[in-house]
Amino acid sequence: MSSEAEFISSLRALATHPAARNLEDDCAVLAIGGEALVLTHDMMVEGIHYLADADMADVAWKLVATNLSDLAAKGAEPIGVLIGHMLGEDDARFAEGLAEVLGHYNVPLLGGDTVSGAETHSHGLTAIGRATHIPVPSRAGAQIGDALWVTGSLGTAMIGYEALRENTKGDHTAYSRPMARLAEGLALAPLVTAMMDVSDGLLLDAFRLALASEVSIALDSKAVPIAAPAERRMEALSWGDDYELLFTLPEGVEPPVSAARIGSVEPQGFAPLFCDGEPILDAAGLGYMHK
Amino acid sequence: MSSEAEFISSLRALATHPAARNLEDDCAVLAIGGEALVLTHDMMVEGIHYLADADMADVAWKLVATNLSDLAAKGAEPIGVLIGHMLGEDDARFAEGLAEVLGHYNVPLLGGDTVSGAETHSHGLTAIGRATHIPVPSRAGAQIGDALWVTGSLGTAMIGYEALRENTKGDHTAYSRPMARLAEGLALAPLVTAMMDVSDGLLLDAFRLALASEVSIALDSKAVPIAAPAERRMEALSWGDDYELLFTLPEGVEPPVSAARIGSVEPQGFAPLFCDGEPILDAAGLGYMHK
Repeated sequence: MSSEAEFISSLRALATHPAARNLEDDCAVLAIGGEALVLTHDMMVEGIHYLADADMADVAWKLVATNLSDLAAKGAEPIGVLIGHMLGEDDARFAEGLAEVLGHYNVPLLGGDTVSGAETHSHGLTAIGRATHIPVPSRAGAQIGDALWVTGSLGTAMIGYEALRENTKGDHTAYSRPMARLAEGLALAPLVTAMMDVSDGLLLDAFRLALASEVSIALDSKAVPIAAPAERRMEALSWGDDYELLFTLPEGVEPPVSAARIGSVEPQGFAPLFCDGEPILDAAGLGYMHK
Repeated sequence: MSSEAEFISSLRALATHPAARNLEDDCAVLAIGGEALVLTHDMMVEGIHYLADADMADVAWKLVATNLSDLAAKGAEPIGVLIGHMLGEDDARFAEGLAEVLGHYNVPLLGGDTVSGAETHSHGLTAIGRATHIPVPSRAGAQIGDALWVTGSLGTAMIGYEALRENTKGDHTAYSRPMARLAEGLALAPLVTAMMDVSDGLLLDAFRLALASEVSIALDSKAVPIAAPAERRMEALSWGDDYELLFTLPEGVEPPVSAARIGSVEPQGFAPLFCDGEPILDAAGLGYMHK
C-alpha cells in the first residue's frame, strides 16, 4: 500500500462517528436539532486543480460550485460557506468571482481564514447545507433492478478545458465555471435509491457507486449524452469536472428533471462495472483520480 | 489600503448573513433546528505557521487545537472536524498526531479532502461545535465597569518556540501542542459579557476586544501571570499562540475557573487600550498579525 493510501486509510480509521458514514461520499451528514446537516470540504491547488495563469475569478467560482455540487448530490439546500484563502496577486478577481458565485446561488459567506506568503497557492472551502429529504441520498443505496440515470451531457468540461489550454477563444465556461445541479438534486432526493455527482468522470464514478452499493452496474455508453465528437465518447466518459448527477431510480420511476437513462443495476458480479458488456475490474485509468 | 486589506474588506462585504455577524470573531454562529452551531476554519502553512522541519504530528495537533480554541471562546462543545490535507512525506506522523488530538478531545473526524503535488504544504481545518449558552459569547459584549480576566500564564508558547528553534531540548509542548480551553469556555459562557481566545498576543487581542466592544480597556500588565522571566514580560504579552481565554465579567462575579484579574473596562476613551496607563492607539507592533 502506498503511503498515500495508508494515510487515507488512517483517516478512515479515525472517522468512526455515525455522521462520517459518508466519508467516502465526500460529505458528512450530521443530525442536529431535528435537522440533517450536510458538510463538505474540498481544496483547490494552483498547478494541480487550476492552471497557474487561470482567471482567479473562475477559481473562486469553481471552488464554490464544486462544493455545492457535493451538496446537490445529497439533495441539500446550501446554508453557507467558510473559505480558506491564500492571498495572491489576483485577489481582487478572486473576490469578484466569489461574489458572483455566492450571488448566483444565493449562498452566504459565513467566515474563514486568509493566509499569505506561500509559494504555491491553495484554497479550501467548506460548504454547509440542510438536507431536504431523510434518508439523505448516498452512493450506497442502488438496488438490483434499478435504472441508472445521468443529468446533462458529459464531456463539456473536457471541451472547455481544451479551449482554455489551447487559447482557441472557444467557450470554456463549462470547465471554468461549472454549475452545481442544486435544483435537480432537491427534486431527485425523495425518489432516488442512490445519488452522487460526477466529479471524476462517469466511468470512475459509476464504478464507485457500484462498489459502495455492492451491486454491478451495466452501462450502455451509447445512451450517455455527450458534448464531444462521437469518436471521443470514451474520453468524454472518463473526463472529470462535469458535475452532473448520477443516480438510480426504481424501474418505472421517471425522473422529475431532464436526464438520460444510461444503464441498469444488476446483482454483484465479478466486476463492479460492465461497460457495453465489457467487465471493468479496476478503477485505474477510468477517470481522474483526485489526490 | 493594501490589496490584502482590500480583499479582506471585500470578503466582509460578502458576509452579510446574520450568522456571519461574528466574522471578525473567527467563528460563524448559525441557528439551525433550535440549536446554535458554531463554525470556524483556520489554515496552517509550512514555513509560515510551522517550521519546515516540524514534527507533522505536532502540526496536526496544533491545527485541531487552535480551531477548538475558537470553539472554546464561544462556549461551544465540539461536534466534529473536516480536514483539508496536502499529502507530504510525513503523513504517517500527521495521522498519528491527528489521532492523538482527536482522541484527547474526543472529537470525531467527519470528512475532508486530501490533495498532493504542491511544493508548499498547507492544511485547513473546519471545526463545528454546538453552543451551550445563548447568546453565544463574542468579543463585542464588554460593558463599562466589567473586570478583565485571563486564564493560565502567557508566554508559554514563546518559551516553547525558543526551545524548539534553538534545539535546547527544553520543553516545547506549549508551542507545539497547545491546549484548547474547552472546559473553561463551557463554564464561563453563561457568565461572561465578552470572551475570545488569545491567539495573537494578549495586547493585540485585548485591543481587538476593546474595539469590538466600543470601550477602552485598562490593562495592568503586572497582574498578568507570565511563564517567562520578569524582564520579558512585555514580550510575553505580545507573543501569540498561548490560546488562553480572555474575558470580561461584571464587577463582583468570580470566574468558576482558575483565572487572573488583569484589568477593567472603561468608557471608550481616545485609545482602545491603556497598558499601565499608557495609551495604545494602533495595533501595529502589539502582537502577531495573522496574514
